[in-house]
Amino acid sequence: MSTETIRLHIHDPEDGGEMNVTPEMWQAACARNPEAAAGIDMTLGTDDAALVSALASADSVMTWTGQAYKLIVGPRAAIGPRMKLIQLTSAGLDRLAPFDWVPKGVHVCNNSGVHGEKAGQWGIMAVLMLANAMPFHATEHRHERWTKRFSRTVAGRTLLLVGTGDLGSETARHARHFGMRVIGVRARALAHPHCDRVVTVDALDSVLPEADFVVLAMPLTPASKGMFDRRRLSLLKPGAGLVNMARGTVIDQDALADLLESGQLGGAVIDVAVPEPLPAGHRLWRVPNLTIVPHVSSDDPDTYTPKTLDILLRNLMALRRGEPPPTAIDTSRWY
Amino acid sequence: MSTETIRLHIHDPEDGGEMNVTPEMWQAACARNPEAAAGIDMTLGTDDAALVSALASADSVMTWTGQAYKLIVGPRAAIGPRMKLIQLTSAGLDRLAPFDWVPKGVHVCNNSGVHGEKAGQWGIMAVLMLANAMPFHATEHRHERWTKRFSRTVAGRTLLLVGTGDLGSETARHARHFGMRVIGVRARALAHPHCDRVVTVDALDSVLPEADFVVLAMPLTPASKGMFDRRRLSLLKPGAGLVNMARGTVIDQDALADLLESGQLGGAVIDVAVPEPLPAGHRLWRVPNLTIVPHVSSDDPDTYTPKTLDILLRNLMALRRGEPPPTAIDTSRWY
Repeated sequence: MSTETIRLHIHDPEDGGEMNVTPEMWQAACARNPEAAAGIDMTLGTDDAALVSALASADSVMTWTGQAYKLIVGPRAAIGPRMKLIQLTSAGLDRLAPFDWVPKGVHVCNNSGVHGEKAGQWGIMAVLMLANAMPFHATEHRHERWTKRFSRTVAGRTLLLVGTGDLGSETARHARHFGMRVIGVRARALAHPHCDRVVTVDALDSVLPEADFVVLAMPLTPASKGMFDRRRLSLLKPGAGLVNMARGTVIDQDALADLLESGQLGGAVIDVAVPEPLPAGHRLWRVPNLTIVPHVSSDDPDTYTPKTLDILLRNLMALRRGEPPPTAIDTSRWY
Repeated sequence: MSTETIRLHIHDPEDGGEMNVTPEMWQAACARNPEAAAGIDMTLGTDDAALVSALASADSVMTWTGQAYKLIVGPRAAIGPRMKLIQLTSAGLDRLAPFDWVPKGVHVCNNSGVHGEKAGQWGIMAVLMLANAMPFHATEHRHERWTKRFSRTVAGRTLLLVGTGDLGSETARHARHFGMRVIGVRARALAHPHCDRVVTVDALDSVLPEADFVVLAMPLTPASKGMFDRRRLSLLKPGAGLVNMARGTVIDQDALADLLESGQLGGAVIDVAVPEPLPAGHRLWRVPNLTIVPHVSSDDPDTYTPKTLDILLRNLMALRRGEPPPTAIDTSRWY
């Protein structure tokens, strides 16, 4: 298909929202990626039916993960024989798993790479907040209490980073700027430029007691679901702090609440929860030393859509060249 | 007095507290600074009367600023003719001003230099918290509301740092690590290694509208008291964030509260307030988008006393050599 036109439909369900795709953004992305943009016949729309129609007849579609779940995966929408690449506007595609709805030969792509800069700033902020007892001070604030608690600097202390991908990598880089020691946990024991030491998931239990702070930044997969159960959380040293920027279900939320209430854990900052949105009256809102953020850690509205369009164009160029699209996921591993 | 014994009394009013001075800490400080420690006859005690007695008869005393206020400045305790150096365990000595109680020839020394590492980590944490709308999320948390608000990264944004001393300097260094542009405001227009631009206080009004974030890290002096009044706070751009790690009285607290309530300012993180401790029921506790920390930003209990003793020993060595003690303040300027 190297010289053929690629028919692409971009489905943008949000009208005027912060992550909106505009024709101007598309043109700017094409100007940034002229080679990739050549020969692409793009349509852009907010209409659900147009997405379903394009799925049956176009070469590629881009849509939001929530929309893909609602319009493609749930109803098992027909995917036509021309379809080659489905681009999602998220890094974590666990909501679309298992991927038994994907026809053979169709690439499912995430937008990994979009989140790193923002996520890294948020991740190190969360670590510094734990080091400075900010969840404790926020709890005291809710009770209108001025309660002094002094805190140590982070240099020389150990950050355990579970997941060394786009989200975690920048957090590790910043942690090293502050003189922290970083242990990375990843699927394969490959060295990492911002980790002092890398271990595989098999060795997780042995490194948990070393951590002053744990940052969860792994994809949700069958392997990571429930990984931080009560037993593993109890292996952390007394007073340790935890950051969750992965998914709510990687952790036993009730165990986390119990360990914060008992004071065994020093504090936690979570960007994800079960369920989302967390309803008023939920136990978590009143757990001490817990800071809750409404799943916004990693999305910079200034850059999110432009960077996602760059990724889409690079994926389509790879397709045209007969190469694997750079952000195509391994559907058997969910990422 | 180069070969004479220096009689030093260290008054430590706190018994067993986190900032306690122990004989072991003194011995370790002497081991780190052997030349400075030679010929010092040190006594250490928790007794108030021993401080007053030493003030009349010794060459040097060290005590806490609050104790100095209570035991020396308030009652105008007699300062003997041998006294040469009064070492305080704070950077800001505004509580002891005006310094008309200091006899001619007596050096009043602060412990500037102790706070930088801790304060810098806290300062950049506070900036990242503002950039990530954390005071807003904390306000929503108090109402048990999951309210998404997306945030931008900090690279390229402008930090206005008022006060480029020990506290502010490390904050600026970290801000540059994150790609921020730093404008420093200081008494004299000297270049600063971590500022892109330095202006004097006279030019403050002209740079306020440029700031995305303002960090107040100046000493409290007659010039800085009330510096951030309603007029100056209103010169900040809509949505700007403010950090106060200086003193509560450098800012018009009611104006700050009004501007946060109206949404003109995006958020604030304050480590200092008027009064301290802030009592339950005070208006500030319920101001939206305001994070309150109980004056603990800059004190690392692991290093505070050891670093302060190092400063004391270096000051005494300078005294012995006939040089000005490095952290002696200019009592006419309060710092």
